[in-house]
Amino acid sequence: MGERALCVIGTGLIGGSLIRAADKAGRTVWGTSASEGTAEQARADGYDVTTDLDAALRRAAEADALVVLATPLPALPDVLRRVGEVAPTVRLTDAVSVKVAVADEVARYAPRARYVGGHPMAGTAESGWAAGTAGLFTGAPWVVVSDDGADLDVWADVAELAWACGSHVVPAAADEHDLAVARISHLPHLLAAVLAAVGAGEPDDDLPLALSASSFADGTRVAGTRPELVLAMCEGNRDALLAAVDEALGRLGAMRGALASTGGLAATVQAGYLARQRWSATREPLTEHVTLRPGILPELRELGRRGDVIVGWA
Amino acid sequence: MGERALCVIGTGLIGGSLIRAADKAGRTVWGTSASEGTAEQARADGYDVTTDLDAALRRAAEADALVVLATPLPALPDVLRRVGEVAPTVRLTDAVSVKVAVADEVARYAPRARYVGGHPMAGTAESGWAAGTAGLFTGAPWVVVSDDGADLDVWADVAELAWACGSHVVPAAADEHDLAVARISHLPHLLAAVLAAVGAGEPDDDLPLALSASSFADGTRVAGTRPELVLAMCEGNRDALLAAVDEALGRLGAMRGALASTGGLAATVQAGYLARQRWSATREPLTEHVTLRPGILPELRELGRRGDVIVGWA
Repeated sequence: MGERALCVIGTGLIGGSLIRAADKAGRTVWGTSASEGTAEQARADGYDVTTDLDAALRRAAEADALVVLATPLPALPDVLRRVGEVAPTVRLTDAVSVKVAVADEVARYAPRARYVGGHPMAGTAESGWAAGTAGLFTGAPWVVVSDDGADLDVWADVAELAWACGSHVVPAAADEHDLAVARISHLPHLLAAVLAAVGAGEPDDDLPLALSASSFADGTRVAGTRPELVLAMCEGNRDALLAAVDEALGRLGAMRGALASTGGLAATVQAGYLARQRWSATREPLTEHVTLRPGILPELRELGRRGDVIVGWA
Repeated sequence: MGERALCVIGTGLIGGSLIRAADKAGRTVWGTSASEGTAEQARADGYDVTTDLDAALRRAAEADALVVLATPLPALPDVLRRVGEVAPTVRLTDAVSVKVAVADEVARYAPRARYVGGHPMAGTAESGWAAGTAGLFTGAPWVVVSDDGADLDVWADVAELAWACGSHVVPAAADEHDLAVARISHLPHLLAAVLAAVGAGEPDDDLPLALSASSFADGTRVAGTRPELVLAMCEGNRDALLAAVDEALGRLGAMRGALASTGGLAATVQAGYLARQRWSATREPLTEHVTLRPGILPELRELGRRGDVIVGWA
């Protein structure tokens, strides 16, 4: 399994880094880009990248390779239609930042593919082939979807790819992953945007920004992320994000009520303080070794909920 | 005026730093503490600090000194009753972080005091006499309240104290100050608390925190501030904070509606991005010199709204 060949669809920051990391780890790896310019650039850098999606998928089916979807979410239907046509039962994973939506698309367009979702949680502010590096995934968590019914053989392929790239595996249910990233990544971006807008105040009054200090600077840092990146990330995770936003609205509304009636903010501030203390106290994850066997998936999900990671086979 | 003596009520982080900074600048300065232990500590450090509030105020009236209120907001009524009794027409300012509430207390308990509010915007995570330093105010904005009717003579005293401490003067109306700090300091603490609580999720599930990265870490940093400090700061600014919270709730609610209906977050994300860009583009303040004369207060407030500062007399 350690020698499984790899076919990467999409050569942006994530796909491009994946091609470099897999190549460095000694894997046979080829990729496809929708852009001839990018494909040429990647070939000039010494990698096997084409614009011929069908040919790349056919080759994957013949080699029993693992196909990795590394395109933005909106591009998936077109790609998956080709998978369903050309390589219908291929081993398939992805590197998209939401998991339920991708599983739905796969079920719709390539229902026979042996799909196990993945999410390498690495990134930079940059994008595109040129921004990619072989070391992007080193030390990062790589979520591998562990819903009941997952194909353990492909699960193992994805885990070994993560390890080959220097990541550690975090097993999780697709919906639990989506809610977790809504809580700790998407909601922070939206609250930062709201805080930035309220904080800046009126266009003709620079007093608030002139008085602002580190609490405002830190609280709004990610509001400086390029809007299209934030939208791509958040809009694909609508259901989970709605749940997180509603929880935030509920807490803010309760606080508003307490402030207006008794003037007391203790409940809000105390809950936030305890949550931040919990974050500060987060221990280093235990690094586990596992053996795949029927019935193990609930145990794997429990391991992820404990905050632990899998680093190899037992 | 440069030699005006100073009487500082309260010897915590701010009052204690003020005593040290004024002493270092060559001023005659004495202070009072409610705690005999703190007064002894300050005397051991070579400063003129007593627990006898009445004596300190009497001395201020005799010397035509500037009295600075540097106690927490809840302690003000007791102090101001003594001012009204012992030194009713004294020159008076304060270093409390809200301005409308202090002005109300002064009007109630010491209505004849020549009061001009102030807010040196400096601080650390520490508190108490031992945490104070002469350099605490260096380079910091020091808001001097410039509402119509302010006593220009005392305004000048406060400005010169700010400069002597290394600060630059930001003139502002009391209510505009309170709304500004609600926007850029108090709201960031409350949103950080909400984000921390929502982000951490359920007590028996460490998956969200295990997957959290810098967006969560930065967005929740100030939720780690000691709760009593946050409460003291926010609860004294209730009216302005309610306005800022309502604006945040309105923006979050509109976003929630858009996410649930069209799924679109562009308006929220774009507004946040532009506001953060505006913050990034904040220029260095122009350093102005002014001459006090009747009718100048609206001009001073306008200068503050432009984000500029006053560093000396023209």
